[in-house]
Amino acid sequence: MQDYKSLFNILTQAIDVEQKKLSSTSPMQMYEPMAYIIGLGGKRIRPLLTLVGCDLFDVNPEHATQSALAVELFHNFSLIHDDILDKAPLRRGNTTVHEKWNTDIAILSGDGMMVKAFDELCKSNPVHIHNLLKLFSKTALEVCEGQQYDMNFETQQTVSVEEYIHMITFKTAVLLGCSLQMGAICANANDLNQHHVYEFGKNIGIAFQILDDVLDVYATDDKFGKQVGGDIISNKKTFLLLKAIELATQNQKESITHLLLSTDMVEKVSAITTIYNDLNIKEIATAEANAYTTIALKHLHEINVNEEKKNMLKQFAFHLLNREI
Amino acid sequence: MQDYKSLFNILTQAIDVEQKKLSSTSPMQMYEPMAYIIGLGGKRIRPLLTLVGCDLFDVNPEHATQSALAVELFHNFSLIHDDILDKAPLRRGNTTVHEKWNTDIAILSGDGMMVKAFDELCKSNPVHIHNLLKLFSKTALEVCEGQQYDMNFETQQTVSVEEYIHMITFKTAVLLGCSLQMGAICANANDLNQHHVYEFGKNIGIAFQILDDVLDVYATDDKFGKQVGGDIISNKKTFLLLKAIELATQNQKESITHLLLSTDMVEKVSAITTIYNDLNIKEIATAEANAYTTIALKHLHEINVNEEKKNMLKQFAFHLLNREI
Repeated sequence: MQDYKSLFNILTQAIDVEQKKLSSTSPMQMYEPMAYIIGLGGKRIRPLLTLVGCDLFDVNPEHATQSALAVELFHNFSLIHDDILDKAPLRRGNTTVHEKWNTDIAILSGDGMMVKAFDELCKSNPVHIHNLLKLFSKTALEVCEGQQYDMNFETQQTVSVEEYIHMITFKTAVLLGCSLQMGAICANANDLNQHHVYEFGKNIGIAFQILDDVLDVYATDDKFGKQVGGDIISNKKTFLLLKAIELATQNQKESITHLLLSTDMVEKVSAITTIYNDLNIKEIATAEANAYTTIALKHLHEINVNEEKKNMLKQFAFHLLNREI
Repeated sequence: MQDYKSLFNILTQAIDVEQKKLSSTSPMQMYEPMAYIIGLGGKRIRPLLTLVGCDLFDVNPEHATQSALAVELFHNFSLIHDDILDKAPLRRGNTTVHEKWNTDIAILSGDGMMVKAFDELCKSNPVHIHNLLKLFSKTALEVCEGQQYDMNFETQQTVSVEEYIHMITFKTAVLLGCSLQMGAICANANDLNQHHVYEFGKNIGIAFQILDDVLDVYATDDKFGKQVGGDIISNKKTFLLLKAIELATQNQKESITHLLLSTDMVEKVSAITTIYNDLNIKEIATAEANAYTTIALKHLHEINVNEEKKNMLKQFAFHLLNREI
C-alpha cells in the first residue's frame, strides 16, 4: 500500500473536492445524500485501481482522475440503490440513504449520481472519451444485470456454482477490471495491454468475492467487519453453500434443506459449518479463488510494462486478497 | 405531421428493433419491463425531434438514430422511476412497471434503461460522441433536478411562478431542446445553429407545459387524455394556481387556502376555476405560453437553413401546442 500512497493522495484530494461540490449544489435534497455516501469513505479500491492502471503505463495518473471519479460515483450510486433493494439499515456503520432520508430521495439521488458518473467522463481527454464510454456503459449494464441475478437467486430454487460465478463476475468483478482498464485507456495503452489489465482486475475480483464468502464463515478476527456466519443465517446462496449442495451426500443434502428452515441460528451456523468442514468446502473454495488468482497473474505477466510496476500491482492484489481468516 | 412521416417510419422501425432486443435479453426480470414500457407507445416526440434536428440540416436522419434511441430510452427510464415516486398506478392507460412487477424491479430495470441510453450513444459516429455525451449527461442531470424540485414543491409552503418555470424547464423542456440539438450534432451543425435549435426546443417545451396546465382545467374534449380538474383535485402547484395566488386579493387568497383543504372535489374544482376566471388566469397563462413560443420562433428564425424545413418544424411545433382546449 505504501507504494500507492501518492496515488491515494491524488485520489483523496479529488474525492474531497467532488464531495464539497456535491454538498453545495442545488437542489440540496438530491445532492446532500450523494455527498453523504461518498463521505462515508470505504477503501476506494476501484478509483485507486483506475489511477494505478494509468500509472502502470508510466503516464501521469492525474490524467485518469475523471475516470477514477466516474468509477467511484457509479459505485456509490449502486450502493444507494442496492441498499434500498436489500432493505439495509446500515452502510459502512452509518445509516443508509433511504433510512436517513427516504426511498424516494434515495432513488432520485442515486439516479443523479449515476448521471454524474457519466458526466464526469466528459471531462476526460476527448480522444479517450469514446473508448471510456463504451467500456464504462457496458460494465455499468453488467453490474445492474449482476444485481438482478443476485435478486433472482433469493427466490430461485436451484442455483449452480457456474451461475453463481457468473453473478459475482457481473455484480462485482467486472467493475474492478473496468476500473483498471479505464486508467490504461487514459494512458494510451494498446488494446492487448488493455485486455490483460482488464482480465487481471476481473479475475482478482472473482477470487476476492469467493474469499469473501469463505471469510463470512471462517473469519476469526475483527478485520472482516461483518457478522461471522451472516450468510448462513440469511440463507445466502454463496459459493460455499452451492458447492456444498453440489457435493453433499443424500443425507447431507437433507440436513442442509432442514437447517435452512431452522430458527435456531446458533445451531444453524454450527451445523452448516460442520457440513462444510466434512466436505472440505473451505479448502475447495480457497483453491477455486487461487485458480482465479492464477489466471489473473497470467494476464498480469502478459502486460507489456516494466516488472517493478507489475510487481507493485501484484503486491496490491495480494494485499486485497489476503485479509485475515 | 404528414411531412415527418418518413422520419416517423425510420424511428418506429428502430424502436421496434430495440424493443425486440430488449424482450429477448437476459436477465428477463430486468429487460422485460424495459420492453414493456417502451412498447406502451406514446407520441415519441423526443426521438422524433432528434431525427428532425438532423434532417433540418439536410443530413440523412438515420445518422441520428442512435441518439434518438438514447433519448427515448432515457425518457422511458424517467417514466419508470417517476411513476414509483408518484405512486402512479397507470401509465398510458396501462399498469405501471412497479405495479405490474414490483418496486425493486422498477428501480433496477429503470437503472438499466438509463445505462442503455448512454450505451446507445457509443454507437454514434465517434467524432460526435464527446459532444453528444456532454449535452446528454448535462440534460439528464437537469431532468433529475427538475424531478427533485417538483417533489420539493409538494411540501414547500410557497412556490414562486419563477421557481415553477425553472422546475418545468428542467423537468420537461430541456430534454426537448437536447433531443433536437443531438440531431443537429449528428448533422455537423455549427455551434450557433445548435444553440438556436436547442433554445427553440426548450422554449417550445416551456410553452407546452404551461398550456398543459391550462388544458388540465379548461380542456373540453377527449383529446386531453387526462381527468379535467385533476391538478386542482390533487392541489398540484401549477402555473395557474401559483399565478392566481400571486394576483389574488386578500379575500381570494383566503378562499384558495380554504378550498385547498376542501374534501368536496366537485365544489373545489368549480370554486377554484371561478377564481381563475375572475383573475383572467387562463388568458394570462396562454399569453405566457405565447411569449415562450415567440422566443422559440425567434431562435428558429436564426437557424441558418432553408425556409421550407424551418417552416415544417414550425408547423410541427404548432401541432404540438395547439391541442384542443
